[in-house]
This record gives sequence, structure tokens and C-alpha cells, in this order.
Amino acid sequence: MNRDICERIAIYCDRNRLFADGDGVVAGLSGGADSVFLLWFLAKQQERWGLRIQAVHVNHGIRGEEALRDQEYAALFAERNGIPCRVERADIPSLAKEWRMTEEEAGRIFRYQCFERVREELGFDKIAVAHHRDDQAETVLFQLLRGSGLRGLGGMRPKRGRIVRPLLETGRREIEEALEREGISYCTDTTNEQGQYARNIIRNQVMPLLKEKIQPMAAEHIAGAGTHLQEIMDYIDCQRDQVYTEIVRRDRGRLVIDAGMFEEVPAVIGREVILKMMQELSGGCKDITAVHVESVESVFRGQTGKKVMLPYGMAAEKSYEYLLLYQKGTGIRQKEGRYSQPQTIQLGSAYKVPWRGRGCCDIVFYKKTVENLLELNLKKHCTKCFDYAKMDSMPVLRYPEEGDFLWLDRAGRAKKLSRLFIDEKVSRGERKDMVVLAEGHHVIWIPVLGRCSAYYYVTGDTRAIIQADLGKIRFCLS
Amino acid sequence: MNRDICERIAIYCDRNRLFADGDGVVAGLSGGADSVFLLWFLAKQQERWGLRIQAVHVNHGIRGEEALRDQEYAALFAERNGIPCRVERADIPSLAKEWRMTEEEAGRIFRYQCFERVREELGFDKIAVAHHRDDQAETVLFQLLRGSGLRGLGGMRPKRGRIVRPLLETGRREIEEALEREGISYCTDTTNEQGQYARNIIRNQVMPLLKEKIQPMAAEHIAGAGTHLQEIMDYIDCQRDQVYTEIVRRDRGRLVIDAGMFEEVPAVIGREVILKMMQELSGGCKDITAVHVESVESVFRGQTGKKVMLPYGMAAEKSYEYLLLYQKGTGIRQKEGRYSQPQTIQLGSAYKVPWRGRGCCDIVFYKKTVENLLELNLKKHCTKCFDYAKMDSMPVLRYPEEGDFLWLDRAGRAKKLSRLFIDEKVSRGERKDMVVLAEGHHVIWIPVLGRCSAYYYVTGDTRAIIQADLGKIRFCLS
Repeated sequence: MNRDICERIAIYCDRNRLFADGDGVVAGLSGGADSVFLLWFLAKQQERWGLRIQAVHVNHGIRGEEALRDQEYAALFAERNGIPCRVERADIPSLAKEWRMTEEEAGRIFRYQCFERVREELGFDKIAVAHHRDDQAETVLFQLLRGSGLRGLGGMRPKRGRIVRPLLETGRREIEEALEREGISYCTDTTNEQGQYARNIIRNQVMPLLKEKIQPMAAEHIAGAGTHLQEIMDYIDCQRDQVYTEIVRRDRGRLVIDAGMFEEVPAVIGREVILKMMQELSGGCKDITAVHVESVESVFRGQTGKKVMLPYGMAAEKSYEYLLLYQKGTGIRQKEGRYSQPQTIQLGSAYKVPWRGRGCCDIVFYKKTVENLLELNLKKHCTKCFDYAKMDSMPVLRYPEEGDFLWLDRAGRAKKLSRLFIDEKVSRGERKDMVVLAEGHHVIWIPVLGRCSAYYYVTGDTRAIIQADLGKIRFCLS
Repeated sequence: MNRDICERIAIYCDRNRLFADGDGVVAGLSGGADSVFLLWFLAKQQERWGLRIQAVHVNHGIRGEEALRDQEYAALFAERNGIPCRVERADIPSLAKEWRMTEEEAGRIFRYQCFERVREELGFDKIAVAHHRDDQAETVLFQLLRGSGLRGLGGMRPKRGRIVRPLLETGRREIEEALEREGISYCTDTTNEQGQYARNIIRNQVMPLLKEKIQPMAAEHIAGAGTHLQEIMDYIDCQRDQVYTEIVRRDRGRLVIDAGMFEEVPAVIGREVILKMMQELSGGCKDITAVHVESVESVFRGQTGKKVMLPYGMAAEKSYEYLLLYQKGTGIRQKEGRYSQPQTIQLGSAYKVPWRGRGCCDIVFYKKTVENLLELNLKKHCTKCFDYAKMDSMPVLRYPEEGDFLWLDRAGRAKKLSRLFIDEKVSRGERKDMVVLAEGHHVIWIPVLGRCSAYYYVTGDTRAIIQADLGKIRFCLS
């Protein structure tokens, strides 16, 4: 039976080209059933692909005795299977505080950072993680609930960059049964069972309810729908890219389509093309909504002369022969560090912000999705991140206004900006140069003071962020 | 505000072309919030499309006093809005028994039959039902759990044949709030809140859990994903049909593709083409699974000479230049009413079954999905239906064997076939001609005796059936 399950997983790996001959693989090893099984599987199949394997265990410094037990077991288990194991230690509670995240989220990010560091050190090729079909079902369901669009609904990929997931079509139960047959023990993380995070509620309350009362195969079915959807959406992407290349061209910063050509494009693909145009122009706003796409579509398919203003400073227009999408005032940027009126930030553009008499600082804003959180170095002083989902519109850079406020903590304790300036001893003269990033009267960030509103903090639930990168402070003509 | 919601729904109707000018519309009117709102909306917008409207209320004969109250309120409400109302009465408990279904399912079928009858009588064009966004979310979630494939995952359509659903993008809460603002009361069906059916569990347990603990907008997001998926899958269907017409041809009952042409087809579309070929050849087995499609694909993309046997008597083969899908022994059918060995039924083929010395009966088997249940006349003596989901393979026609049994009731009380024959006074001589439909030793149906195993009864959860149509009993050479 274990030969069966191993063979099935190996076929899955081959079908998805997870491993190439001679690959070096870093395998995450928590000591729990899934990662123990994964390492056992990799060790068994080492020759099949001529793999070099390195296990990495991360002790999160949270669960004390229990964590130590896991660490020792992980090291022992790797050794028994002839695989070298590296143990990494962290102080996740502190990191979580520093990064302003839940411990769960900080732990996840730190773990992947460790894997990546070890991989790079060893010059290895892949990082193997133990997500299985039940994890996948939870992911798909979670994405469905949060309305992430059909692409997100596909769930995790068997392969994403260097990360591979050999167990993605294997059920939790199968894994545990295989371990039992093999007489392999594993650690159980007692904190897994608790928690009010959406993912834990799905795992511990929703999925059991669905399986017991509605459909025992719920997890298989949900994960299966995800896989099928991945394929379908890859095909749609492919069709869209082909059409995009054929009909969209760039002309002086504007995106232009010949109106007659657009008419020939099927509606579904047309909307995908519009979405891609908006993403390209807005610097990667991945979650421009269907409403925006529809309004551009209505312009493109409407009467000539029709025009619509869009978020992120974009506009769409139909002339007789052409369909246009462009940034309002393309190329006109805030160069002088003076803000005569609120400046809606454009992603990817640099803004000069006066720096308390010491010159100017160039600030560039980006939008990133949560997958990229891994790559963020949240400790860097020159980077600030804000939860994009909390924003109803693109924020503006401007001078302080009457009524401005920010949150001091996540409980919603607010403070007037004028009061904060007094406390921070900002002189009246300085205040007029004190550029803030704001949404309405809610001040998101005061760059010079390094203060952020707690309302926009990045948390475990954050899926997309606006990131501000600060350049060197330089003398400038302000 | 009510102008807003009405306008929004009217735009939805126009966008989906639910009504044409001068349409006659039958509107289901239970007296509950949703149908009351729908009728109110239609009455308000009557002039917009020049509609003729007929309300139809169905009294299920279940809830006694409460049902009478609903009936009276429905009639009154329609009158107040200047809409004629027809009241239909049924004895659903008896019908449910007769049709071997839950009362819920029988009620649903009877209701639609009433609507359709009235529509036909009046020569009207449409039947409007009050499904709203929360119903849609429940449907999508239900389909996701039962693994119905991406097409089923799209949920209900705004328009399907003559049935239109104007409220499909409107939330339950909005509807209730609009009624409140308008001062319109409605009836509450107290049985709605109960029940162990999957749909009720989703409505009363799963959705509230999701909304309260994970995402307040869960229903909107789920329904939205469904709508988007409908569009995407329509596009995929369109692409598939185009490719199908181009590359698949029929040759002496076999489906043939030029191997070189198939290579050019993208994998996703190729699999859809294979699925459609299998459906066409098997007579509409809509739920041929991905496994079958994959095995045909591996043949079509494999070495020449490769061949695979498939369910429903099909086979796939690759020759040098051609890819073939065909029924094994196409055209060879059981003509003599003798069954020298078990005969796996082929859908759409006629089988002669000896009829207790009185001649033979032609029986044809079909597979139908649940949507078609409406069209079934379950009362007809010449039609038998069995729950397809209960079958692990296509059943066979054969003579009785040692060990045969059937279920007497749905609780699983079984009876040996030999014992049944004794009780039914079937002589030993007759037994050898007593053809049965069976799966393994489980006897699904004894045509001559009209006995079915309760295990295969059609219930409210049935999504697909095998239907047996009995012809006239004729003298035949058996």
C-alpha cells in the first residue's frame, strides 16, 4: 500500500515536473505528520531523481518544551533517514511584534526565509513543502469566501518559483495511514487546533461540518475543482496574452487598440485584456475589480467620444477608430516637493517629500500581493507597508488639513494630527512642510516622523499591501 | 432607495435579456418574502416591458393552517397589485410517496409542473422564479462540495429555457429591507428553518458560520465567482465546439480525429473535446469522470497502437494517423431476448426481455441529469428510474444468480432474490427467464415483477438517473 501511495505521488511529481535529475532540495521539516511523511517520501525516492536533500527545522521559540520535543524529533528522524538536518531558531513573538503581524503569519514568513537562505547557501534548486490536499481545499474555500476572483480560486500551485508541493493531491488521512503502516511517529502541534483565524475556523469548524453533514468527499471535490480551474485559467491567460500582443500597442504612454479589432474579440477575453491593460498602466494593481473592467468595457463597446475616469488616475476613452487607456497627466510628476493640491499616488512613480529642512526624500510606492510578503524585508527602515484592503481608494500625498487623525492602536484609539504635532514638538513652521499620506482625513503615514496609523497595519489577514520605499535624503529645491 | 433596487434589477433583466416586449410571464408566488418582492417588482415594472403577468400559488397540502394562511395572503397580495392569481392544490405527501422522493423534491417538481401548465394554457412566454443571490451562493457551494465539475459550479443561470430569475444578483437582506420600506408583509415558512437535507444545512448552519466568523460578504463573493465561472465556461464550451466541428468526424458509428490535428489543440480544449466525444458515444453520460478523459488523452497523445477499454462499452485507440473512439461491438445488440452472459447495458440501445410467457418487452435505457427530472412523468408505469450515483458501474441484464439480493426499504433491510421468488410465486421454470438488472449481486430491478431495490430509489439528493423505458409487450422469438 505504501508503494502505491509513493508511486502515485512520484507520478504526480513527474507530471508536474517538480524535480529534475540531480536537483538539490531543501525540505521543510516541522516534525508534524505532513512534513515527516514528505521527508520520508523524498528519502525513499532519492535515487529516482538523484536528489540531494537537506532538511530544515525551524524552532519558532513559542511553544517551549513542546517545541524542543519537535526539534529533537525532527533532527532524529532526518538522521535516521540519512538526511542532514539544519535547525534554525527564531523569536517569532518579537518578530511578529516588530513586523506588526500575527505570530502565525510571522512564523510562516520567517520559515520561508530560512528555507530560502539555506537553499541559496547550498546552491540548491528547490524548496519542498508539505501542503496536502486538505490544505488545498481549505485554501480554495478561503479564497472563494474572500472573493479573490477565479485565479485565486485555483488555490496553491504544485510548483511556484522554487517552491514545490509534492503532496498537493494526497489526502491528510492517507498520509497519516501511510505513516502508521510504516510505524513512523510524528509530533502533534497542539496550537493548531485552536485560534480564531479564518484559516483555523475553516480547518476546525467548517471542513468537519461539510464532511460530516454534507459530503464526506468535500475536500477532494474542492481541491479537484481548484486544479481544474488552474488549468482553465492558464488557458484563458494564454488566449488573453495572444490577443493582447496582437491588438494592444503602447503610444506615448497610452495603451491603444484599434476599435474594429476589439469588436472581434470574444467578450470574456476582451474583459481579460482590459484588466491586463489596467494592471499594466496602474503598475500592477492586481485587484482592480470587475466594476472597473466593466466601466472600461462599456466605453470601448459604446459610442464614440465616450470617456470614463478610473481609479489610480486612469481614464478610458473611445474615439472614432481607437480605444484608449491612459494615466491622467501622464509624465507630469511632483518634482519640486511642493504639493499645491492633494496628489493621488501613482504606483511606480517617485515623489519628493521635504525632509524637515534637511532636504528631500524620494519615495516610490508599489503595490504587492501577499505572496511577495516573503520577499519583503519588513525590518528595513527605508520601507513601509500598509494594508491595501483597508483603503477604499488610492491614498494621496498632501499637507495636513483640519480634521486629520490617525489610529494609535488597532483597537481604534484615534488621535488628532494637530495634537500629535504638539506632542512630537513639530513647530508651526515645520507643519506646512510636513507631507502626509492620507485617505480622506485618515492619515496613513507621516514619512518624516515615521508614524503610521494602526488602522493600516499589515496583519495575518493582509493579502495586498502598498509599500513605500524611501530613498536617500538629499538636498533638494523645495 | 426602492427605486434604486428596482432599477438595478431592471438593468440586470435587460443585460441578461430576461424579458422581451409584450412577454406573458407566469410568476411563482409562495407568499414568502422573495416571491412577494418579485411579484411587486414585476407589477411595478409591468409597463417597462409591456408585460402580461399571471401569479400562480401552489398549496402543497402539507402545512395545514399555515399553508392556508399563505394561500390567502398570496391571492390577496396579487389582487392588491392588480395581478390575477391562480391557486393550485396538491397532495405532496402522496406524490412524494408515489414518486419515491422527499416531499421537498416532489414539491419542487410539482410546482414547476404547475407553472409550466399555466404558462402553456395562457400561451405565455416566461416563468419567473424568485431565486436570489443567497440561494445562488448556496447552490454554488453545494455544487462545489458534491464535486460537480466547473460547469455545475457556475450555479443557476439568469435564464434557462423559459425560466427566468430576475433576482439572482439581489441579496436576501436587500429584498427584506425593500419590503420593509414599502410596508409589505410576507409569510414565513417555518419548515424552512429545519431539516437535515444538505441544502438546509448549508443555509442554516454553513452560511451563517461563514458570514459571521470568516467573511460577511461570503454570499456575494461565492455568487460572484459563480457568475464569472459561467462566462468562462461558456467561452470554453464555445472554443471546444469550434474545435470539435473542425476535427471530429463520424465514420461508421466511430468518432475519428486526424492525429496531427489533435496535436495542435491546446490540452485543456483537447480534454473537453474528448469528454464531448465520450458523451456523444455513450448517449449522454454527463458525469464521465476526469479519470476516463485522462485515459483517452493518454492514448491519443501516446504511441501508435495504444488502446484502452472504457466504461459504457467504449474503447479508444490510436493508429498511425487516426485517433478513434468507438463502442465495442457497435451495432451488435441483444435481439433474441436470450442472455447467455451478463449484458452490460448500453445507453440508448433496446433490449428484449422475456415477459413471463406473454412475449417480449423492449426496454431502452437512458441516463438523465436532475434538471430533466421535471420532464419525467414519474407516475408512468412504462418508466422506471434509478439513482445513478448509487451505481459504481453500468448495470448488467442477466439471469438470476446464487447470492442475488435486493433492498426492501431504504433502511437497508435486504431480501434474497430466491426468497422473493418464492413469496411472489415465481415457478422454477419461470425463474430461468426472469431477467434482472443488477450490479454485482445487488438486483436493481426485476422488470417482469415491477420490483426495484430501495437502495437505488430516486430521492431529493438524486442528481442523475438511469431511466428504463418499457415498450409494448409483443410476441417475440425467445
